[in-house]
Amino acid sequence: MSQLLTDIEGVYAAGIAAGIKKKDLDLGLLYVPNAVASAAVFTKHTFKASSVSYTQKCSKRHVLKAMIINSGNANAVTGKQGYTDTKLMASQVASMLDLKPSEVGVASTGIIGKPLPMPTIEAGIKQLCKLKESKQGADLAKAILTTDLVPKTTFKQKKIGKKTIQVAGITKGSGMIAPNMATTLGFLVTNVNVSSAVLQECLKKAIDASYNMLSVDTDTSTNDMVVCIASGAYAISQHDPDQIKAFQNVLDEACIDLAKQIAKDGEGATKLLEVYVKQAARMSDARQIAKQVIDSPLVKTAIHGEDPNWGRLIMAIGKNDAIKLNPEKVNVMLGCEYIVKEGQPTQISRAVLSEQLKSNEVTITIDCQLGKASSRAWGCDLTKGYIDINTEYN
Amino acid sequence: MSQLLTDIEGVYAAGIAAGIKKKDLDLGLLYVPNAVASAAVFTKHTFKASSVSYTQKCSKRHVLKAMIINSGNANAVTGKQGYTDTKLMASQVASMLDLKPSEVGVASTGIIGKPLPMPTIEAGIKQLCKLKESKQGADLAKAILTTDLVPKTTFKQKKIGKKTIQVAGITKGSGMIAPNMATTLGFLVTNVNVSSAVLQECLKKAIDASYNMLSVDTDTSTNDMVVCIASGAYAISQHDPDQIKAFQNVLDEACIDLAKQIAKDGEGATKLLEVYVKQAARMSDARQIAKQVIDSPLVKTAIHGEDPNWGRLIMAIGKNDAIKLNPEKVNVMLGCEYIVKEGQPTQISRAVLSEQLKSNEVTITIDCQLGKASSRAWGCDLTKGYIDINTEYN
Repeated sequence: MSQLLTDIEGVYAAGIAAGIKKKDLDLGLLYVPNAVASAAVFTKHTFKASSVSYTQKCSKRHVLKAMIINSGNANAVTGKQGYTDTKLMASQVASMLDLKPSEVGVASTGIIGKPLPMPTIEAGIKQLCKLKESKQGADLAKAILTTDLVPKTTFKQKKIGKKTIQVAGITKGSGMIAPNMATTLGFLVTNVNVSSAVLQECLKKAIDASYNMLSVDTDTSTNDMVVCIASGAYAISQHDPDQIKAFQNVLDEACIDLAKQIAKDGEGATKLLEVYVKQAARMSDARQIAKQVIDSPLVKTAIHGEDPNWGRLIMAIGKNDAIKLNPEKVNVMLGCEYIVKEGQPTQISRAVLSEQLKSNEVTITIDCQLGKASSRAWGCDLTKGYIDINTEYN
Repeated sequence: MSQLLTDIEGVYAAGIAAGIKKKDLDLGLLYVPNAVASAAVFTKHTFKASSVSYTQKCSKRHVLKAMIINSGNANAVTGKQGYTDTKLMASQVASMLDLKPSEVGVASTGIIGKPLPMPTIEAGIKQLCKLKESKQGADLAKAILTTDLVPKTTFKQKKIGKKTIQVAGITKGSGMIAPNMATTLGFLVTNVNVSSAVLQECLKKAIDASYNMLSVDTDTSTNDMVVCIASGAYAISQHDPDQIKAFQNVLDEACIDLAKQIAKDGEGATKLLEVYVKQAARMSDARQIAKQVIDSPLVKTAIHGEDPNWGRLIMAIGKNDAIKLNPEKVNVMLGCEYIVKEGQPTQISRAVLSEQLKSNEVTITIDCQLGKASSRAWGCDLTKGYIDINTEYN
C-alpha cells in the first residue's frame, strides 16, 4: 500500500463511524501535537459554512494542531445554531486533547441546510479522541468522503542533502467542484519547519496551480478548505530560496496529485480530462481558456461519447470575448493530433481522432501563439452517472 | 393554428429539403421585398462563422431584404473556403431576387468544421427562389432547426389608435445555448416603419431582456444571430416616446416568448426553469445571480429529480464573490414557498417543497433586499436526454 500522512513522524489520525451517515466512516481526527506552523485556504462562497469562518479565524492567529472533520452534513445555512455547534465541536476536542479551542480546526461536508446531529457527534468525538495517538491515516481518508467512490491520498518526498522533505495529504470531492480560492476539503501535513507565514504563501501558490484549476461541474461548495500542518521535524531554512523552492515543488506535486484524483473520481466520470493552454497573452487568459474547455458540457459529453466532434472544442475556446485570442494563430491538439493549425482545420480523419479519445485520460493542448503564459486544468467527462447521482442526492 | 410571420403583409417565406441533412427541411428563405429597415445582433464568439461576419458587415450599411438560412452545417472554422461559400450563397440569392448581394443576409447552423456541400446548396437556392412569393412561414420555421424537437414561432400585436403594431418571429436552438450578445438564430419581422438605427436600439434592448438571459448549457455558438426586418406598412412616429415604447413592449414580448420556447425545448429538457432576482444592488448582480442559478448543474439535476435539496440553490446564489450580497438579508422562494428568510432556513417540509417541483414550469425567486435592480433568466433541467443527444451528435 502507498504511504499515508500518518507515515510522517509526529502525525496521528483516526476515523470512526459515528452514525452521522447511515453507514460508513463519518468522523475523523487529524492530530499533530507538536505542530510548528499551519496554513489554510478557504472557499470565497458568500454563504460560507460556520466551520469555514471558525477555522479561518483560528488559523489567522494560531497554529492549528488538530482538525476534527465530519462528513454526511455540511452544517451550512443552518443559522446561529450552526455556529454554536461548530464551536462546541472544537472546544470538546480541545478539552480532550489538552489544546486551546483556537488550535482545533473544524471541517464539515455533506448536505446543506440541515442541523448537525449533535448528540451523535459529541459521542463520536469522545470515542475518537481516545484514539488520538493512532496511526489510522487510511480511516481518516475514508471518513471525510461523501459521493466519492475512492479515498484520495498522496505522499511526495524529495531528498535535499541528508534530509528528506515530505508532504502527504488526503482529500475528498466528487461533485460541487469548481475552484474559488480553494475547493472541496484537503488536509496536508509536512515534516518541514517553517513559519506559518511562509507555509501560507507556499500553500496558496500550490493551490492556484492545482485545486484552483480543477472543475467537475462549475459548482462551488460552501464548505471548502485546504489545511496544511507542519510537524517541524525537518528544519529547512526559509531564507534559502533553493530550499523553499524544493519544498514548493514537493507541495505542488502533492496538490496536483490530489486535484487530479478528484477530477478522475468526479461524479459519474469515466475519463480524466487535462487541458493545457500555452503561449497565451496573459496568465488570466491561459487559466480562463483552460477552465472554459474543462467546464463545457458539450466538450464533456463529446469526450464521453468518444465522438471527435472537434467543433465543440473550438466553440469552448472562443466563447469568451474578454480573452485575447487571434483565431488565425491558434493551434489545437487532441491527444497527439493537430485538429486546427493557425486557425485552419487540418485534414485529420475522424477515425484517427477517435483513437485519441479511447484512452481514459484525454489531453487537449491549445497553443495561442501570442505570449508566454501557460496553464493546466483538470476535469472529467459528463455522463448519465452524474445525472443519476444528482437527481437523488439528499 | 397560431399566426406566423408570413401573416404580416409584405413578408414572404419558404423552406425546402435541399439535402444538406439526411432528412427534413434544411434550407429556408425569408423575403421582405419592400423592407424599410433592418437590425441585427450577433454572437461575440472569437471564432465567429463567416455567415456572421458577412451578415454583420451588410447590416451595418444596408437594409436587409432577404435572409438565406441553412441548417445541418454551421460553415464555421472552415477557413477561407467558408467565407467564399457564404458570399456565393448571398450573391446567388441576390441575383435571383433582383437585389444587391449586400441586401441578402446569410445564416448557417449545424455541425462546426465541415465545408458546406455547395452543389447541393446551389441547387437548393434555385428551387427556393422560385418560391419567393410563398407564404410558407411554417416551412421556414422548420427549415432552420437542428436538434430542436419543435418549431418555435411567435406573433404579438397591440392596437394603437386605429392601427396595430405587429411583431412576428421564428427561432431555433436547443443546445450550445448561452447568451453573449445574441444567442442561437432568430428572425423577426414587424410591420412598423422606423429607421434602422431606432430598430437596432429597440432590438438590442429586447435581446438583453430575453435571449441574453437564456441558457441551456452555458455553451455559446459560433453562428448566433438575431435579425429583425421592418416591412414598413405601419408608420409609427419614432420621435413619439409613447409609440416607440409601445413597439418596444411588443418586441420584448415576442423575444421573451421565443427565448422561453428555446429553454423549454433545451436538449433533453423536461422542465422550464425561470429565475427571478429582485432588489439586487446592481443590474449586473441581478443578471449574474439569475444566470448562476440557471447554469448550475446541481440545481438543474435536483429540479429534474424533483428533489427539494434547496442547499444547492443557496450554493448557486452565493458562489461568485464578485457579487454584492448580504447573506443575512436574502430571501429565497421555490415556487410559492419560502426556503430561506433573511438568510435563515424556514421550517418548510420537504413534502411541501416537493409539490412545488412537480410542475413542468418551476420558478425560483431570490430577493436580495439590497437595491432596486431586477432580472429574469430562463433555462431547463439537466437530464439523461442531454447526455444521449450530445454523446452522439455529429
